[in-house]
Amino acid sequence: MPNSAAILTIGNAIVDVIAQASDDFVTEQGMMKNAMNLIDAERADQLYQAIGPATESSGGSAANTAAGIAFLGGNAGFIGKVGEDILGRIFRHDIEAIGVDLHVAIDAQLQTACSYILVTPDKKRTMNTYLGASIELRPEDMNPAAIAAADIVYIEGYLYDAPAGPACWDKIVDIAKAAGTKIAISLSDEWCVDRHRKAMVDFITQHTDIVLCNLDEVKLLFQTDKENAIQQLRQMVAEAAITDGPHGSLAFAGDDIAETDADLDVQVLDTTGAGDLYASGYLYARHKGASLKDAISLARLTASEVISHIGARPQTDLREMASQQFPALFKD
Amino acid sequence: MPNSAAILTIGNAIVDVIAQASDDFVTEQGMMKNAMNLIDAERADQLYQAIGPATESSGGSAANTAAGIAFLGGNAGFIGKVGEDILGRIFRHDIEAIGVDLHVAIDAQLQTACSYILVTPDKKRTMNTYLGASIELRPEDMNPAAIAAADIVYIEGYLYDAPAGPACWDKIVDIAKAAGTKIAISLSDEWCVDRHRKAMVDFITQHTDIVLCNLDEVKLLFQTDKENAIQQLRQMVAEAAITDGPHGSLAFAGDDIAETDADLDVQVLDTTGAGDLYASGYLYARHKGASLKDAISLARLTASEVISHIGARPQTDLREMASQQFPALFKD
Repeated sequence: MPNSAAILTIGNAIVDVIAQASDDFVTEQGMMKNAMNLIDAERADQLYQAIGPATESSGGSAANTAAGIAFLGGNAGFIGKVGEDILGRIFRHDIEAIGVDLHVAIDAQLQTACSYILVTPDKKRTMNTYLGASIELRPEDMNPAAIAAADIVYIEGYLYDAPAGPACWDKIVDIAKAAGTKIAISLSDEWCVDRHRKAMVDFITQHTDIVLCNLDEVKLLFQTDKENAIQQLRQMVAEAAITDGPHGSLAFAGDDIAETDADLDVQVLDTTGAGDLYASGYLYARHKGASLKDAISLARLTASEVISHIGARPQTDLREMASQQFPALFKD
Repeated sequence: MPNSAAILTIGNAIVDVIAQASDDFVTEQGMMKNAMNLIDAERADQLYQAIGPATESSGGSAANTAAGIAFLGGNAGFIGKVGEDILGRIFRHDIEAIGVDLHVAIDAQLQTACSYILVTPDKKRTMNTYLGASIELRPEDMNPAAIAAADIVYIEGYLYDAPAGPACWDKIVDIAKAAGTKIAISLSDEWCVDRHRKAMVDFITQHTDIVLCNLDEVKLLFQTDKENAIQQLRQMVAEAAITDGPHGSLAFAGDDIAETDADLDVQVLDTTGAGDLYASGYLYARHKGASLKDAISLARLTASEVISHIGARPQTDLREMASQQFPALFKD
């Protein structure tokens, strides 16, 4: 176990409860399809009664990204919060077993977050998240030594949903700026962007080095079309990678631009975690000094692995797979 | 939900914790590979520390069989015991959500059973089971109305491992005989056969209508070769279905014999639950009046589904898949 992680991610510590469901079920239950719906404890209980048989596995957007980086052989850490319960134990076990440097606060008064993820026949996922302990992340949970020691700190946009979220963002910025740690953020999802648009625009403009997002999110952020949205993002931040589902992805860093198509040969079983694992590949590669083109190519590969099975964490030897295509990035 | 189940299964209520592991790890940890190893609470904790990231899903041999029958559209029930904890809640949710008629006793003093299942690169599984609440099954948990109302009661051999197991078997026999309920049993695994050989031989001879097993188990039961073992089993019980992994399976009922090869086209990802789902297909078909040949063909199909993914419960619409090949068995 390393003393410090090169890439430290911060976000919700969630155990995913994944079940298959029909489109009708998602509609009848009043969920926003293909989005993350926030639910309370009572609704979580009701929903669990209503869904079909499920599989549990550790998830959480930024945690998935850290797991993906560790699977690639990278040096990753994670900051989050869980309860002192079986789900919290499962979460901590899984992320530690992958080799992620864990900075998870435990609050015995709270329940570990869980997300009821419904996979519809079109292989899209609709998430219903009970944030529990996770939403109680506070500035004092933002480990200063871990943030200062990291080369990149990667924060999920969902952190804005926590009551103490803004204070957390402020503390991360203070530590990161003082230590020279780069700041990367994800926009998480369209509804998260909708909830926190102004705060996100300000944060990107003032503090962010790298943005990870999808095209719908960036269009919504600037409430404009693709070309204008990307143009505005380029004026605001030095570097970003933007995914567009089956249409591929693009990235820019200053004047440099790279694009790639999606891997359409992969049999899509469950898109849960696709964006998170894209971020793993992208951040791992850029941290190793890869070109934009190589970074989005590795990102495409890591995203493809996770959509080929149920669940948001890799199930194959990512490093083995990736090192054959990108030997220069896996030399140590 | 039906008032009574046509096929009632009885056994351990277990949540599976499935992780990938190397052959070296299995050896170093002193496990019997490809078998079910019984462990205590302390060993369970140690082992969980040592294994890689995992996925949790409901399991248990007889419970898997009941789930498979319900997935086929059959009328199945299950008797078992869990604790009043998150794993117990997960177990009860999953089996009820599939539509299995649930007769699960809850003991707040006990922990729900879990099995750490290590899948090695050869896709074999090595189970390490902490029986917890499950091993505390007692005669009073054997629901007389459910057993009497069933057409077939299917008991897993592992029930002999419970301290009150023999008393449970006696009570099941008393109720089943009085009600005309057929008795089917599984031999569970070789080590279970080894632990309880004499009791199993006596029970098969005196009380059993149908035996479900694999070839290694029946060879060990009679400590002889394939031909002699099958011959001895035929003299002892009217009907049996015997699987032989990639070599296929055979069944007999009186003078009738049928054989089938294995489905070698399926890409094997995890053999957990293969025998349990074979039993689902076989019992469902025979209960519907199918020929031996059709029964082992359906059994081959249901077993193939479950080995094509991680976890012991079906992930596709088994009834839809099976009804195309065997329309006569899915008419109602």
